[in-house]
Amino acid sequence: MYFASDNSGPVHPHILQALTQANTGYALGYGADAQMETLRDTLREVFEAPEAAVFLVATGTAANALALATLSQPYQTVFCSDVAHIHEDECNAPEFYSGGAKLTLVPCGDKMTAQGLRKAIEAEETRGVHGPQRGPVAISQVTERGSVYSLEELRALTAVAAEFDLPVHLDGARFANAMVALDCTAAEMSWKAGVDAVSFGGTKNGCMGVEAVIFFDPKHAWEFELRRKRGAHLFSKTRYLAAQMLAYLQQDLWLDNARKANGNSAYLAERLRQAGAEFLHRPEANMIFASLPRASHQRAFDAGASYHLWDAPLQGPGDEMVGARFVCDWSISREQIDQFLALI
Amino acid sequence: MYFASDNSGPVHPHILQALTQANTGYALGYGADAQMETLRDTLREVFEAPEAAVFLVATGTAANALALATLSQPYQTVFCSDVAHIHEDECNAPEFYSGGAKLTLVPCGDKMTAQGLRKAIEAEETRGVHGPQRGPVAISQVTERGSVYSLEELRALTAVAAEFDLPVHLDGARFANAMVALDCTAAEMSWKAGVDAVSFGGTKNGCMGVEAVIFFDPKHAWEFELRRKRGAHLFSKTRYLAAQMLAYLQQDLWLDNARKANGNSAYLAERLRQAGAEFLHRPEANMIFASLPRASHQRAFDAGASYHLWDAPLQGPGDEMVGARFVCDWSISREQIDQFLALI
Amino acid sequence: MYFASDNSGPVHPHILQALTQANTGYALGYGADAQMETLRDTLREVFEAPEAAVFLVATGTAANALALATLSQPYQTVFCSDVAHIHEDECNAPEFYSGGAKLTLVPCGDKMTAQGLRKAIEAEETRGVHGPQRGPVAISQVTERGSVYSLEELRALTAVAAEFDLPVHLDGARFANAMVALDCTAAEMSWKAGVDAVSFGGTKNGCMGVEAVIFFDPKHAWEFELRRKRGAHLFSKTRYLAAQMLAYLQQDLWLDNARKANGNSAYLAERLRQAGAEFLHRPEANMIFASLPRASHQRAFDAGASYHLWDAPLQGPGDEMVGARFVCDWSISREQIDQFLALI
Amino acid sequence: MYFASDNSGPVHPHILQALTQANTGYALGYGADAQMETLRDTLREVFEAPEAAVFLVATGTAANALALATLSQPYQTVFCSDVAHIHEDECNAPEFYSGGAKLTLVPCGDKMTAQGLRKAIEAEETRGVHGPQRGPVAISQVTERGSVYSLEELRALTAVAAEFDLPVHLDGARFANAMVALDCTAAEMSWKAGVDAVSFGGTKNGCMGVEAVIFFDPKHAWEFELRRKRGAHLFSKTRYLAAQMLAYLQQDLWLDNARKANGNSAYLAERLRQAGAEFLHRPEANMIFASLPRASHQRAFDAGASYHLWDAPLQGPGDEMVGARFVCDWSISREQIDQFLALI
Repeated sequence: MYFASDNSGPVHPHILQALTQANTGYALGYGADAQMETLRDTLREVFEAPEAAVFLVATGTAANALALATLSQPYQTVFCSDVAHIHEDECNAPEFYSGGAKLTLVPCGDKMTAQGLRKAIEAEETRGVHGPQRGPVAISQVTERGSVYSLEELRALTAVAAEFDLPVHLDGARFANAMVALDCTAAEMSWKAGVDAVSFGGTKNGCMGVEAVIFFDPKHAWEFELRRKRGAHLFSKTRYLAAQMLAYLQQDLWLDNARKANGNSAYLAERLRQAGAEFLHRPEANMIFASLPRASHQRAFDAGASYHLWDAPLQGPGDEMVGARFVCDWSISREQIDQFLALI
Repeated sequence: MYFASDNSGPVHPHILQALTQANTGYALGYGADAQMETLRDTLREVFEAPEAAVFLVATGTAANALALATLSQPYQTVFCSDVAHIHEDECNAPEFYSGGAKLTLVPCGDKMTAQGLRKAIEAEETRGVHGPQRGPVAISQVTERGSVYSLEELRALTAVAAEFDLPVHLDGARFANAMVALDCTAAEMSWKAGVDAVSFGGTKNGCMGVEAVIFFDPKHAWEFELRRKRGAHLFSKTRYLAAQMLAYLQQDLWLDNARKANGNSAYLAERLRQAGAEFLHRPEANMIFASLPRASHQRAFDAGASYHLWDAPLQGPGDEMVGARFVCDWSISREQIDQFLALI
Repeated sequence: MYFASDNSGPVHPHILQALTQANTGYALGYGADAQMETLRDTLREVFEAPEAAVFLVATGTAANALALATLSQPYQTVFCSDVAHIHEDECNAPEFYSGGAKLTLVPCGDKMTAQGLRKAIEAEETRGVHGPQRGPVAISQVTERGSVYSLEELRALTAVAAEFDLPVHLDGARFANAMVALDCTAAEMSWKAGVDAVSFGGTKNGCMGVEAVIFFDPKHAWEFELRRKRGAHLFSKTRYLAAQMLAYLQQDLWLDNARKANGNSAYLAERLRQAGAEFLHRPEANMIFASLPRASHQRAFDAGASYHLWDAPLQGPGDEMVGARFVCDWSISREQIDQFLALI
Repeated sequence: MYFASDNSGPVHPHILQALTQANTGYALGYGADAQMETLRDTLREVFEAPEAAVFLVATGTAANALALATLSQPYQTVFCSDVAHIHEDECNAPEFYSGGAKLTLVPCGDKMTAQGLRKAIEAEETRGVHGPQRGPVAISQVTERGSVYSLEELRALTAVAAEFDLPVHLDGARFANAMVALDCTAAEMSWKAGVDAVSFGGTKNGCMGVEAVIFFDPKHAWEFELRRKRGAHLFSKTRYLAAQMLAYLQQDLWLDNARKANGNSAYLAERLRQAGAEFLHRPEANMIFASLPRASHQRAFDAGASYHLWDAPLQGPGDEMVGARFVCDWSISREQIDQFLALI
């Protein structure tokens, strides 16, 4: 009954096998190995982007912070949702990597609208040299609240960015979950929708610790390489990052895992709904924000369930509804979900 | 015949097995898993330092840059050898992580002397607010040229630092190789010798990608945690870092691997000496800097040997001596070495 | 008819005379001159703070950014009003000087309330190492909208900061104007109200270009000195900064100038009120935010008046009310004000 | 008898008068005043560079650090003399403003040679992504040891920079003194000699506190403006900076002052030579590094002379020679010099 995060489950067996298979003989380090070369080609195919610059790092924060630093200047501001991971959960990593750029929060609580984004952009850079200058637009897909932007919504956001000549970064820590939810291609959800750079997550969907950064315009490649090395995110034994990501992409493992995670989440959401849960956001991928009676949470925790309460402590006098976040990964079994549902 | 680096060989089978064993069930992320807790205790035992603060990162540059940033201020200068890895091979990571501190290079070409270090320290901070202020002393053990500071030499350096009230960091990317060379304990080569913080390497000695940072005074712990997260070096699935490092420390695998690597290196060095090689530095651990006739290099490369030439191109008219760096890891076989020696 | 800013008027003659008087003979640079020594004592007396550390810089942004950098850490967030000068008008200088700290905006549009500040503080640092850590509280007095915090309001804000053990900085670019408005002492409006550091402005109130930074706890002194030098804000010929500030403080010139500026503003505000202007904020010092009919603005601009429209362009179809900002300094004459009033 | 620095003397009366004359009526701030516009044109004429971007700041360190930050990237290294002001006397300001770039010191002790510079450049960027990348070349003219590069020497240095496609910055804190020493034009000593950006000093040669930064390629203009504001070096009352610099340039005041300073220095040097002083560097502008017997220093200090000893304390047993630095500015009188000479 582990719904705490999609990074608390085990690594998919295929990924582990790939590490073992990669572990033969000698290989040059720092990205000069053969697997890394294969991986670059594979990701370019997946994204239908033969010119794309492709890099690997080991954490999602590194992917986001390095990508945004490459796309921005320190006297600019990055536009993002007011609940964006880069704002709430990276301990100022974007500010650090960009050399002190600002984040301008678009009030939305989940998904930015084109209108909200435009308003935020228009409000900046009205003071000439005095205020921050307009910088990249950063979009999370899946969002931090479990929503998914439709392709129309994505395109509307990037159209606003294009109007102001601003680059667009997509935080795809749960890229595969979003793709599966939208039933679209990787290209459709990225460059075809006006996205310039993607953090393409593997860690939350079955890998051990690997994320790709993809720039569709390769002009950013060398600067990114230098920023990655300077940020201490260039691995010496890159073959073990490449091997993970290759196994992840082979035989649609990434999409299969995402389908399982989303399916588990849909199943759990439907049962929660029947049990009277109130939803704080509409669950569209593999995360659910829902309120349950306090006593239900207590029973679940007493039985060993693991998940995060949201915005409210468990303690309290009555039996009011208390919000919680439930995340399903590929490895959760129906039995676990049913066991949990039986408790609440 | 791979002598390019001790990061080009495979991961030790025990480390891979540990990853597999760690891959069962659910575990909280970000250092809250049980293996990470065990690892902290194990490293404290290894270093005889029950109060020490212990952290894991995945690259040596991250370990060094984060440790130095924690020990320094941006208006200070770090004292190090003029061939230190932090100066030559980290693309300004120490300057980045420290917020713009300077490195003051102690001229030495390999090992700093206490006298040279004192001279460098005395020359700084003579200008009040105008110049950089004195900051940490950074020592590499094994050095970047394959030498090893004796405990006496280490203590002499840290005594100079203590005189000026400066903290001392030890870049132990090859900590085990140095310990084996000195036949001493981890405590003797660190806090008992006046060292305040250690980058304790695993990657170059059989791990996949893991380094520990150890502060003997735990007052630095929370700041380091925040700097690590801000630097995007906090892994979500930390159990796989901890599992590597635990397997590395169990049953003396780390020391066995280092003994093998040093032994391979000693064997190669002795044979090179007999073959007429000239040594640029005295090989004391698992790296050899030696000159061979150009034709010997050519034959080796033609036969597929892999290693780095040093300070000189291979092309040239005559058959003069050309310097090269040979690094042995634990996995090199005597057959490989003999095969290489037969060529030159 | 210049109401554009209190930095567009001339320097007060006494300040200029002081520069001339300071211009005799030789004086050591970088703060070692006699006038600087006198100035330190004078400011300590003015603030009834014999231990205070006192520094001069030449711009308000330097004063704010250096003070906040000294009080914060790069992994923290600074709490301030959503219209704070440090957020809107310093092109990311606080982020730059702090090494990438964040600003958390307290929604208020002008003056923070203790309740609003507490809510903002409570919302941060709920995510352990993942989010930014709580840092200084920054208060502007006079505010950017021409309001003045009462001593009670100030104390309520600093009490919240103290509850969370956070230091408090006061941006006093218009410190004298606020003091005059409150009819209080410098000590009452600073350390007696719980403020730890003050940017004490001179430039907007008759000086040529000088601001003091005052830390009531001198433990910050040396760090501030180093940060100032590193930021290139240590002047060589400091006697000319000290001479300005000394003349400013002598014979109550600073308070006289502020009384004139506030008086001019009150006179203008009263007449605007009678003329039917609508006030966007209550004018309490020397700035007025008021709406006038479009045609009135047009007549004023045609006649050479200088001031900033606020949040709205002048162009438009009808004759609706258009907001504007009017700033009075000490040098504005009643004739100028009357001339302007006659136009609108 | 003040030879401590060319920033310890008074401001030239013409400069003070200009401040008084500028002090009439209202002027828009932040560089939008009429004097600033005139100053831009004047400096473009002085440098025969009609397209040049021209900015004012108040300190030499600001000029240098902002110019270098604009010309560099944080993963690069700046090449400079091992006694450069930017290295020894700016408390890491270049590292701060550049976001953590490194300085590579060319060993020379005073003037870099083309050969030494090339060697330093060639030694960097040999490690691909691992080491710092090559960045700007920074030259001080007058040097920190009182020497002056001939135009040939300057061109030889910039030719090396051009070979590697690196921009060149000239720290001209004593630009006028060097021009007078070389009897050349401003253009000849800057863009005609291959220089891309100049810090053009006023403060050390009669101004109160003003330095210009000039980019001969205006493409850098907007970035510099933003970096200046972000660095808190944009003055609100810019007219008083512009007025100083205008008065400085009018009627050849800058060159007259420099001629006086250099003349005073030559006179002092000649007399010191006759008195048996040993010169540590050849005095070519307005600074002298010379050794005198300890007793001579003692007599001078006892009589109130002010200057810096160099590399050695005054205390000591015998009467050996002790090095000192003597700086002459425009305001030193022959009487002062003779008075000093009579003592030693």
